[in-house]
Amino acid sequence: MIEVVGIGPGQKGGRTLDAICALDAADVLVGYSGYIDLLRGEYPQKPRVTTGMRGEADRCREALRLSREGKRVALCCSGDAQVYGMASLLLELAGEDDDIRIVPGVTAALSAAALLGAPLSGDFAVISLSDLMTPWPVIERRLRAAGEGDFVIALYNPASKTRTGHLTRACAILEEHRERRTVCGWAKNIGREGETTRILTLGELESETLDMFTTVIVGNSATRLCFGRMLTPRGYRP
Amino acid sequence: MIEVVGIGPGQKGGRTLDAICALDAADVLVGYSGYIDLLRGEYPQKPRVTTGMRGEADRCREALRLSREGKRVALCCSGDAQVYGMASLLLELAGEDDDIRIVPGVTAALSAAALLGAPLSGDFAVISLSDLMTPWPVIERRLRAAGEGDFVIALYNPASKTRTGHLTRACAILEEHRERRTVCGWAKNIGREGETTRILTLGELESETLDMFTTVIVGNSATRLCFGRMLTPRGYRP
Repeated sequence: MIEVVGIGPGQKGGRTLDAICALDAADVLVGYSGYIDLLRGEYPQKPRVTTGMRGEADRCREALRLSREGKRVALCCSGDAQVYGMASLLLELAGEDDDIRIVPGVTAALSAAALLGAPLSGDFAVISLSDLMTPWPVIERRLRAAGEGDFVIALYNPASKTRTGHLTRACAILEEHRERRTVCGWAKNIGREGETTRILTLGELESETLDMFTTVIVGNSATRLCFGRMLTPRGYRP
Repeated sequence: MIEVVGIGPGQKGGRTLDAICALDAADVLVGYSGYIDLLRGEYPQKPRVTTGMRGEADRCREALRLSREGKRVALCCSGDAQVYGMASLLLELAGEDDDIRIVPGVTAALSAAALLGAPLSGDFAVISLSDLMTPWPVIERRLRAAGEGDFVIALYNPASKTRTGHLTRACAILEEHRERRTVCGWAKNIGREGETTRILTLGELESETLDMFTTVIVGNSATRLCFGRMLTPRGYRP
């Protein structure tokens, strides 16, 4: 049996009880080494199979092999099990008889937003700026659409060592639809050592140097500052 | 102190450890009666303040009043604390000195998607079809934009007793951009008694009778069926 476990942003507190139970019960933890390292303190004796970045298919095949041997496997994903996680690839590679359960978790859009205030109160869109698996023109089309729809937007993977300039380009596209003074924010290393947040304008975001451990929230036309926090009103107030 | 707590979809297993700790430590639970009822079994003795639907501002004011008296308050929201929850209204009504912490939770898009397969693997949009707080033309604009952007879409509040026809209209708008045979699914009463799911096409969804306890996932152009589950590939596979 394989449980694809969303382990939340980092520390145990951000994990659901179902996720904790799945990790506790697992015979072996499988995942990207960076995420499995987050669990080392809690499960020092638990067998683990790790692969580096881009080792996604190997991770899934190994999880399937172990599961078919009768092992109970926790395939671990940061945040949620699906959102830029491993659940879909595992289902693609699995057969009809493989026993697979998806255990959802708190994705970075939600944990970042909670640190920044309450920007994600209503309709929102989630877009990754990584073009490793999605062609950049598709990403641009989605940024344009999210801008047109006045969605609050959570941007994942705003940059990496080899991928710079995407955030600047994304901001330029969003500025076709919203003002440069739109309230934005980012959160880095959420629930981990070095947790940092910043609230800034869309104009300032354009030249910000971020990394792949950062999640960006771009406000919509209604988002404003409220005592130093981002706030998108829901319109409840009479 | 007020903690705005996303209690997840229903049962305790879907709740984060931070959420559980906030509920455990609270002097009083405040929230919509339907959600506070979900917690009655776990906290039978805990004082509670409940209001009916649309009592959102009253709930927040009561939470603020109790907190200013020195009580530790858990303001409880289904799913996440922000997404169609109470966090933003509370921040709007609070003063600078009120001590407020947002505790994120697993929103229905993620818990519904996990039951249906792995449809939310990449970029997605979340849209509520309730026009109680958002004018219908804004909702239509967002549906169009999400269709144009080929986002997988999670629809919240597809219908209520007084609000019928919105889902049919939404499907018609989405059909301007995607085929009637697009793979969709819905999940109802997630993590609660009467949990039900169904996978169907966009054409079939159009005439489905749903309620406000149902979350709908509309696949994008890449979403397909895989052994009876919804699957949106991420493009990892060589």
